[in-house]
Amino acid sequence: MDLNSDLGEGFGAWTMGDDEAMLDIVTSANVACGFHAGDANVMRRVCERAAERGVTIGAHVGYRDLAGFGRRALDIAPEDLADEVLYQIGALDAFARAAHSCVRYVKAHGALYNTAAVDPEQAAALVEGVRRYHTDLALLCPPDSEMLRAAQAAGVPAYAEAFADRAYTPEGRLVSRKLPGAVLHDADEVAARALTMATTGEVVDADGGKLTLRADSLCVHGDTPGAVELARRIRELLAESGVVLRSFV
Amino acid sequence: MDLNSDLGEGFGAWTMGDDEAMLDIVTSANVACGFHAGDANVMRRVCERAAERGVTIGAHVGYRDLAGFGRRALDIAPEDLADEVLYQIGALDAFARAAHSCVRYVKAHGALYNTAAVDPEQAAALVEGVRRYHTDLALLCPPDSEMLRAAQAAGVPAYAEAFADRAYTPEGRLVSRKLPGAVLHDADEVAARALTMATTGEVVDADGGKLTLRADSLCVHGDTPGAVELARRIRELLAESGVVLRSFV
Amino acid sequence: MDLNSDLGEGFGAWTMGDDEAMLDIVTSANVACGFHAGDANVMRRVCERAAERGVTIGAHVGYRDLAGFGRRALDIAPEDLADEVLYQIGALDAFARAAHSCVRYVKAHGALYNTAAVDPEQAAALVEGVRRYHTDLALLCPPDSEMLRAAQAAGVPAYAEAFADRAYTPEGRLVSRKLPGAVLHDADEVAARALTMATTGEVVDADGGKLTLRADSLCVHGDTPGAVELARRIRELLAESGVVLRSFV
Amino acid sequence: MDLNSDLGEGFGAWTMGDDEAMLDIVTSANVACGFHAGDANVMRRVCERAAERGVTIGAHVGYRDLAGFGRRALDIAPEDLADEVLYQIGALDAFARAAHSCVRYVKAHGALYNTAAVDPEQAAALVEGVRRYHTDLALLCPPDSEMLRAAQAAGVPAYAEAFADRAYTPEGRLVSRKLPGAVLHDADEVAARALTMATTGEVVDADGGKLTLRADSLCVHGDTPGAVELARRIRELLAESGVVLRSFV
Repeated sequence: MDLNSDLGEGFGAWTMGDDEAMLDIVTSANVACGFHAGDANVMRRVCERAAERGVTIGAHVGYRDLAGFGRRALDIAPEDLADEVLYQIGALDAFARAAHSCVRYVKAHGALYNTAAVDPEQAAALVEGVRRYHTDLALLCPPDSEMLRAAQAAGVPAYAEAFADRAYTPEGRLVSRKLPGAVLHDADEVAARALTMATTGEVVDADGGKLTLRADSLCVHGDTPGAVELARRIRELLAESGVVLRSFV
Repeated sequence: MDLNSDLGEGFGAWTMGDDEAMLDIVTSANVACGFHAGDANVMRRVCERAAERGVTIGAHVGYRDLAGFGRRALDIAPEDLADEVLYQIGALDAFARAAHSCVRYVKAHGALYNTAAVDPEQAAALVEGVRRYHTDLALLCPPDSEMLRAAQAAGVPAYAEAFADRAYTPEGRLVSRKLPGAVLHDADEVAARALTMATTGEVVDADGGKLTLRADSLCVHGDTPGAVELARRIRELLAESGVVLRSFV
Repeated sequence: MDLNSDLGEGFGAWTMGDDEAMLDIVTSANVACGFHAGDANVMRRVCERAAERGVTIGAHVGYRDLAGFGRRALDIAPEDLADEVLYQIGALDAFARAAHSCVRYVKAHGALYNTAAVDPEQAAALVEGVRRYHTDLALLCPPDSEMLRAAQAAGVPAYAEAFADRAYTPEGRLVSRKLPGAVLHDADEVAARALTMATTGEVVDADGGKLTLRADSLCVHGDTPGAVELARRIRELLAESGVVLRSFV
Repeated sequence: MDLNSDLGEGFGAWTMGDDEAMLDIVTSANVACGFHAGDANVMRRVCERAAERGVTIGAHVGYRDLAGFGRRALDIAPEDLADEVLYQIGALDAFARAAHSCVRYVKAHGALYNTAAVDPEQAAALVEGVRRYHTDLALLCPPDSEMLRAAQAAGVPAYAEAFADRAYTPEGRLVSRKLPGAVLHDADEVAARALTMATTGEVVDADGGKLTLRADSLCVHGDTPGAVELARRIRELLAESGVVLRSFV
């Protein structure tokens, strides 16, 4: 199983999360590329540290919106979105290659992730940007999403991720953050769910039923000290349970 | 002889210069990479058109200053400058490669060009960014500059450019734009100087003496209708005179 | 009748439209405030020229999106939108006051205009930003819009504008630009419509029926040489026909 | 004596320092205006909290450089600098006035502070921006600086600030941060220096001699938990010692 996390989200004098700590936990790093977060200096440092530790580097592409951290939907023309995705991948790959690694996959950030999960046009534009970079570049997607379907239609290798700390509907969708119980806070429960997801692919849904989630990667967070601690615990529980931790790609 | 020009200098809804016309004139295109001008959409279009015409693509890297068009000196730390140069090259190369071409050289823009011409530290940082991308990438420099020396010291292929429409001191430096006669406006004279530079490497300096300029490329401008016309005339005069026009790299 | 136009839409080295020419034609200037276009230098110059000519100064507020010129819908939180509107008004008013004038009204730009015309929440946030600046500040709105209703509900003076070069549905809405005939190109027809709008408030709708539009201002464009010429013609026809041209506020 | 601190230095999703805690300590708040830090939302909240507590609001103006946090010298034309200063003051004053307060003074940030302290041209441009807003607006300056002299020459009320945690040369200049001993870390020593500065205006210089510093305000920092604690201690020591804490303006 793979553990991925959003890293390199500082900008200039501002920091976010503990990149160093998380790079000892994850097997894949979604590195911000300067559009919603990240700058050239942060990108270089994260790529160097990831390469040293054998962590796979992914381009975490987002809307061009530093002020909104890429979390606000932006009605960008699909052609422009494909161009902006390509720009971000190229910029990050320069640092990955300088660190003797390379960008192996792409993940959408924030509002782009949410939009491209359900909007076929934005999904196709995202995939087009990925495909233009090179045809082996993978896309990390929500399961059963327009994004996943667009990648498959374009012949772009697509992988699915799941969240151990989020509740799922019986249909396998994330429960909206606006609803109670959408985010799980009990560390024991979250770690146990991660283990079940990694070993059986099964998880209890919000209605108490059994749900099968075919995830190639689990997303863990590192933006608070508590989050780092939880991510470390998930890694340790998986490792102790014999789950091999390695990049999905 | 090579003719180079600064292209792709629009941004969003704003345009600058006539990229289409200039791509029929030059053999090398210095393409803005989004820091002082240019956006992902402009970069893609210029790279596609350049590739179609066999025009060599160079990364025109600048300070991160859209509001100042990269023309204002910015006291950036050398380490950060190297990172920002690498970022810009990587971003542009994504478009160049998607157009089945690649970035073959780098040229500094505006205040970065002027600073790195005389400041060994900024020159070394610029060269470091270029060298990290890959070791064959060339740097287009002012002749006899710190930039040129830094490139040579780092083993980065360095080429020199000259300006047919600018006056030179007897020492081979550009006469400051603040002095009268720094910019030549007579089209006949400028075209004739371009031809002499291309064939003999000799040019009359501001004091009327003979100056030898060893230039691998001539820089022509395209930001006004008159500039495009002059650039076309230079190309035609060189071609009629038997000068082979081809990229320096 | 008032003639308003979008001015001050340059940014740094980039220009857009002919501000000087338009300031001799309009009675109200919608001045960009730096979020979708405009910078401090442009804002100062337009405010100085407007004040000299007695042209009323309005704050043309937009989404924070220079790369998209404010033309892309941005899903900003209403609270943040109100804050950003207030920021833009304050910034422009500094220049208006330094030129011994002041900001008398606000108009939304691009995607914010379109969104706040139909979305009550965004309309309320826009109005809240205006109202917080001071209670006499007016808002220039599309007729019969959520924006107009939100202004009226908050006690903000609201005025309606019409477009002489756009087709209207029988319900008084603009025909979508995606439909044929949405924009009128015949200069004689546009000028004649402007005169009818100014004198009788009546206009022929897209189905050939009679429509009554109660507009306090007519919006004219200045982003192309042809547009400036048309705006001048409208002004001259109104003046010749005895329509008094003066600001709506 | 006045205590001032740099506040409102977050941007979007990024935070810096503890604005809430510092607003209980200082009597004057230097609020970032969006050019080097700060956004409309942060500006509103800091102005509201400052107004509630009776803390005087100052505009902390800086170079347009979010990526560099305004700490990098930028060779901006004086005319443009004056415009950008005016823009920032106007934007902040909108929030101050909406909170039933107003901007009472201006302080330059980072590289602009350092440059305008020694460069008469940049100092004059800064002062010009302040003066244009209105003639009573004060400028908080380093003592014995070009900035102070430019303000006095233009009739702008000028006040001087000192730093309790920085070493001074016998001439009353700050010891360069590049030299050992430039920043004092012992909390007892710093608090004691603050008290001496506030009561006698005397301070021991870096050579052990007596230096007289005529400061209207002491600058305290709040960007780390330790800094907030030290600032609180300074305030308490001054208060216990009978020093009246109130804004300088």
